[in-house]
Amino acid sequence: VKTPAGVVALLTDFGLRDPCVGILKGVLLSVHPAARLVDLSHDVGPQDVLEAREILSSSWRWFPRGSVFVAVVDPGVGSGRDIVGVEAAGHVFLAPDNGLLGFLEEDGAVRRAVRVTNRKYFLQPVSNTFQGRDVFAPVAGHLSRGLDLGKLGEPIRKLRQIRVPRPRAAGRGVLVGQVVSVDRFGNLITNLPAERLGKAERVDIRVGAARIGRVRTSYASARKGELFGIVGSRGTLEISVNRGDAAKTTGARVGVSVKVKRGR
Amino acid sequence: VKTPAGVVALLTDFGLRDPCVGILKGVLLSVHPAARLVDLSHDVGPQDVLEAREILSSSWRWFPRGSVFVAVVDPGVGSGRDIVGVEAAGHVFLAPDNGLLGFLEEDGAVRRAVRVTNRKYFLQPVSNTFQGRDVFAPVAGHLSRGLDLGKLGEPIRKLRQIRVPRPRAAGRGVLVGQVVSVDRFGNLITNLPAERLGKAERVDIRVGAARIGRVRTSYASARKGELFGIVGSRGTLEISVNRGDAAKTTGARVGVSVKVKRGR
Amino acid sequence: VKTPAGVVALLTDFGLRDPCVGILKGVLLSVHPAARLVDLSHDVGPQDVLEAREILSSSWRWFPRGSVFVAVVDPGVGSGRDIVGVEAAGHVFLAPDNGLLGFLEEDGAVRRAVRVTNRKYFLQPVSNTFQGRDVFAPVAGHLSRGLDLGKLGEPIRKLRQIRVPRPRAAGRGVLVGQVVSVDRFGNLITNLPAERLGKAERVDIRVGAARIGRVRTSYASARKGELFGIVGSRGTLEISVNRGDAAKTTGARVGVSVKVKRGR
Repeated sequence: VKTPAGVVALLTDFGLRDPCVGILKGVLLSVHPAARLVDLSHDVGPQDVLEAREILSSSWRWFPRGSVFVAVVDPGVGSGRDIVGVEAAGHVFLAPDNGLLGFLEEDGAVRRAVRVTNRKYFLQPVSNTFQGRDVFAPVAGHLSRGLDLGKLGEPIRKLRQIRVPRPRAAGRGVLVGQVVSVDRFGNLITNLPAERLGKAERVDIRVGAARIGRVRTSYASARKGELFGIVGSRGTLEISVNRGDAAKTTGARVGVSVKVKRGR
Repeated sequence: VKTPAGVVALLTDFGLRDPCVGILKGVLLSVHPAARLVDLSHDVGPQDVLEAREILSSSWRWFPRGSVFVAVVDPGVGSGRDIVGVEAAGHVFLAPDNGLLGFLEEDGAVRRAVRVTNRKYFLQPVSNTFQGRDVFAPVAGHLSRGLDLGKLGEPIRKLRQIRVPRPRAAGRGVLVGQVVSVDRFGNLITNLPAERLGKAERVDIRVGAARIGRVRTSYASARKGELFGIVGSRGTLEISVNRGDAAKTTGARVGVSVKVKRGR
Repeated sequence: VKTPAGVVALLTDFGLRDPCVGILKGVLLSVHPAARLVDLSHDVGPQDVLEAREILSSSWRWFPRGSVFVAVVDPGVGSGRDIVGVEAAGHVFLAPDNGLLGFLEEDGAVRRAVRVTNRKYFLQPVSNTFQGRDVFAPVAGHLSRGLDLGKLGEPIRKLRQIRVPRPRAAGRGVLVGQVVSVDRFGNLITNLPAERLGKAERVDIRVGAARIGRVRTSYASARKGELFGIVGSRGTLEISVNRGDAAKTTGARVGVSVKVKRGR
């Protein structure tokens, strides 16, 4: 893996009020002054590994080849859980081995994975409470300068996985998925892949008590206030209201099930 | 227009919790690895074109010559509305043609404007739901590398305008404007230009039920808790409370009218 | 002081919704296009100098040597209070002389301090309401390019101090401090230094009505839901709940006293 641009993308649950993210960046720039730091999000729900995984898996492919992704959402800090470095699809990923990076393995994208143990690349001493600062940041700095992943520790064969909600078939032409994210506009992002929805414009979608009959090709092609389905920017079904807020309209939130019956 | 520093200033209503802004930056850096990205705001009210216009029109002149401004506040995404690129005052602006950039025309600053249609500079395919990623980001990357605006599409003669609240005269020495923004400190920013307020320190300002008799030259010259007028950093009248919150004190918010009678 | 990386760390109470932070960055990049801008926090409570001091004093040592720190939390803007530039520990600090930088003097770290008065390095005219834009940003730009501090104004002997809460002894082996910060996870960060807690794992800590008997060495070594003490990343006692929120559990917030009786 080459890291031509020195881009480091950061994903944490630290929030932006505390100086933790700034401290990570200070350490990172101490190791690699020319790194280009990009914030993916720091408002992941506290210790919400699944949300972090959802964000990273829908974002990484838009970055320049050779980017380093650092994800610190880590309920197990100080518990002896591993930190892993992964080479996949021309990028490098660094995260706790808690399922956050599991999507890379599913995609068959992993080229190499190591347990990060070489203290030579850590700050000393390593605290038990802020390994973002003491381990993730300096290691990411070195990786973005081109350090070979193999220097960080021994190879591992498998990444840990977490249970991720999957769509399931429920009878002929019926698929049940769920809302996996709600964006700032109130759009409900589901895990139902576009290619399994069929081509029909007429469908029968249920979200809680709401019933939706149409899949639109753009927000603007819906009437103002209409609740409709649309294939969103992640390639999955989204539920939207033109110039409105589908989360408010339907009362749905992350985890709510979405049932789709294909039209004929 | 030259873009010596490669500065790209970003203004959206995407919020910072979702990874959308990070994705824009990933795409932009893929096109132009040396771009210097600055966030203007990503907390514009959802689809609030007027607020975005207010922010951009009060910010752009503080950036280095040759900066590229990208504003994605876009109720009409997917509706066939145009995207425009504008050269003005030594900078380049990229936004939906929905009135957001209208202030450039009022100021007589527009040197060149084009409809952005050349798909060569877009990601493929262009989605109907996230043109920030597929059109605005890659085009901004190319512009910040120095691409000539003329390569993006045909010239246009006029930008679209939106209705913007203007101060109006209401009798001798009386001017009625309104609150156009409330900052984090509760200061009420109005659209009443300083030069039309006269020089008198004594005035008669009405905001809702509140009545203000003084224009101060600094926050600190007011008594603690005093409600007063001041010429703010945008060159317009602001209503403030020294070490307090004028929005709370007066109950006023964006859109509330402000009436000024000049002192003698 | 050398500024090899051109890093400028920014700390304000401007929030991120308004474009003020973006404007600072525009001005800074106009002066020094190669500056590397890092946000420490912009969500300091409005005019909360003590919070800003707490953030800066716990962050600066993680930045590369030669960084410039700009802190604009300034209840006295326009009151004639001084702006100071300070060289300390290989870095440069720029802030209102309102106690924000007082910790540098306590640490004996100050090598040089000046009153910033040389208008040659300011924008013209200087407003009374937004000196962040007109003074702090351009001066920081020059400092990050390597401008000698002595060019900015006359040396001063002492920085202003503010009252900062300190731990005090209250009988044999009893120390009373307070909560100085609550992080996003609800951890209560106190001002009780680790080295004064003794080595015993068993202690007697009181926070409001809550009583804590254990100091743990990591979050994960506590039982789920357990309230415990831990030496945090700032080297002080923190009160935490494993996979929970200590602020909610105890009802404590900034300013609440924390009493520790050492175990035997």
